[in-house]
Amino acid sequence: MVTAYAPASIANVSCGFDVLGLAVDAPGDEVSVQFNDIGKVRIVEITGDEGKLPFEVEANTASKAVLSLVNHLNYERGIDIIIHKKMPFGSGLGSSAASAVAAVVAANHLIGMPLTKKELLDFAIDGEAVASGARHADNVAPCLLGGVVLIRSYSPIDIIELPVPDSLYTTVVHPHVEILTKVARDIMPKEVSMKTAITQIGNLGGFIAGLYQNDLALLGRSMVDVLAEPYRSSLIPEFQSVRNAAMYAGALSFGISGSGPSMFAFSDNSSKAEQIGELMEKCLTTKGIDCKVFISKINQKGASVMW
Amino acid sequence: MVTAYAPASIANVSCGFDVLGLAVDAPGDEVSVQFNDIGKVRIVEITGDEGKLPFEVEANTASKAVLSLVNHLNYERGIDIIIHKKMPFGSGLGSSAASAVAAVVAANHLIGMPLTKKELLDFAIDGEAVASGARHADNVAPCLLGGVVLIRSYSPIDIIELPVPDSLYTTVVHPHVEILTKVARDIMPKEVSMKTAITQIGNLGGFIAGLYQNDLALLGRSMVDVLAEPYRSSLIPEFQSVRNAAMYAGALSFGISGSGPSMFAFSDNSSKAEQIGELMEKCLTTKGIDCKVFISKINQKGASVMW
Repeated sequence: MVTAYAPASIANVSCGFDVLGLAVDAPGDEVSVQFNDIGKVRIVEITGDEGKLPFEVEANTASKAVLSLVNHLNYERGIDIIIHKKMPFGSGLGSSAASAVAAVVAANHLIGMPLTKKELLDFAIDGEAVASGARHADNVAPCLLGGVVLIRSYSPIDIIELPVPDSLYTTVVHPHVEILTKVARDIMPKEVSMKTAITQIGNLGGFIAGLYQNDLALLGRSMVDVLAEPYRSSLIPEFQSVRNAAMYAGALSFGISGSGPSMFAFSDNSSKAEQIGELMEKCLTTKGIDCKVFISKINQKGASVMW
Repeated sequence: MVTAYAPASIANVSCGFDVLGLAVDAPGDEVSVQFNDIGKVRIVEITGDEGKLPFEVEANTASKAVLSLVNHLNYERGIDIIIHKKMPFGSGLGSSAASAVAAVVAANHLIGMPLTKKELLDFAIDGEAVASGARHADNVAPCLLGGVVLIRSYSPIDIIELPVPDSLYTTVVHPHVEILTKVARDIMPKEVSMKTAITQIGNLGGFIAGLYQNDLALLGRSMVDVLAEPYRSSLIPEFQSVRNAAMYAGALSFGISGSGPSMFAFSDNSSKAEQIGELMEKCLTTKGIDCKVFISKINQKGASVMW
């Protein structure tokens, strides 16, 4: 049996709507795989999902990803899958991507590593698409590869791994409220003004230059989201207060993780990252909103086999 | 008397509409300045403009830029300006920006270098705005500073100087037809689809990563313009044929310079740059369109005092 871990990821990263994502250390999903004798991909156990995840192979992100992989390889032995769901659903932290990624990483290892990690991307995207309804890579790619990833293009897929400033910390807060991805998508306009597009383009450019130049101030001031945040922030409880708290505690930047409700802040040292977490949590709990805080550097390892 | 040279510039650079610009070696404008005794900024001579440029100080990009500079400094001595217009008008090569930049660089030198080059940016923008009707920096900034420049933000102005791959050549062709900047602006839609914005954002990201990684292939495939080119290319004669010729001759990329009609191609060596120029020129001249080709590396020096 092979077990792989795949970490949570922050898609969009404020200025990179649909084109940027980065990995954090925790939370994350674990998926185990082993050969079976029925010659088919099968889910045999799911833990931690409160009965929410389907066992149908085509409908579950993890098994769909494995299916896509073995079909591509014309691999004939059957594979049993055990999913240890450790990530919250609908959190904006790439939960479905993590299951898909952990599953293909484990399966690829089980069958003798025919593909490189980067070559697994397409199959993980196939898996994640079952949950999101579309082929997205902004969670899958950083979850798989680690670090900060630019998805330059989807057709053909073109993934650029960006440098990661060593002193950067992320503080993520996950308020325990549910935002359906469909609602978060539908609230956004289909058209934007040219001016808005240009503002976002300038900021994305500043963000990438900031990463290469290790210029955290440039990074911070570039992390402005004029595409999604003006709309999606209305779905997130206490958004403005949590932002104010994070910035007061010394954050370099603050934004929505993926489609929310999780929010994240960047900072330049661990004690600030802790303080930011405490203040963000306080903001929410004093309003009666339960939440959980996760602090880490940017995860540069991505998904990996545990044992 | 002090004379300064300011080079032509390619704004937009395909994927960076309104946020990217780069300088080339030629053509360029020369502006001379010397003290006068009337205590005012004055234009005393203009050559090479065929009588097209105004002598009114507030209406000419060069004198307006100098005026803005001396007003800021509360400088009291008068300055005479001589403009040697060597760049074509309405070419899409930043002609009005070059006059403004050359003028402030010369004036700053004349009065004892109170400001750094970068500090001159605002005044050059003030000057260029006389011609374009708006404060733009995508010609002014690269013309002044050289290299490839990202304008991350306009308020406040935030200029990021990007690295320049050493092996990169530019071939510019200027067809001798006139496109009014106003027409080139008006032909563009005020709104774009979210999908279009995201495509442009991904490409701008890839372009900047390509510069830092010295990855010319990434640079080339990122230089796709889905914002302006689909509209503006219709204003440029033989656009598609010239593109095909450039790509056939080995160009890494091809696009419109600024708002056109000039077009430019990137390539990775001087003989390709020459061949591209020959084929582009042939495309136009066989259709009876007169044109001129300029070949250079990216100019990293920007504007400078000649003597």
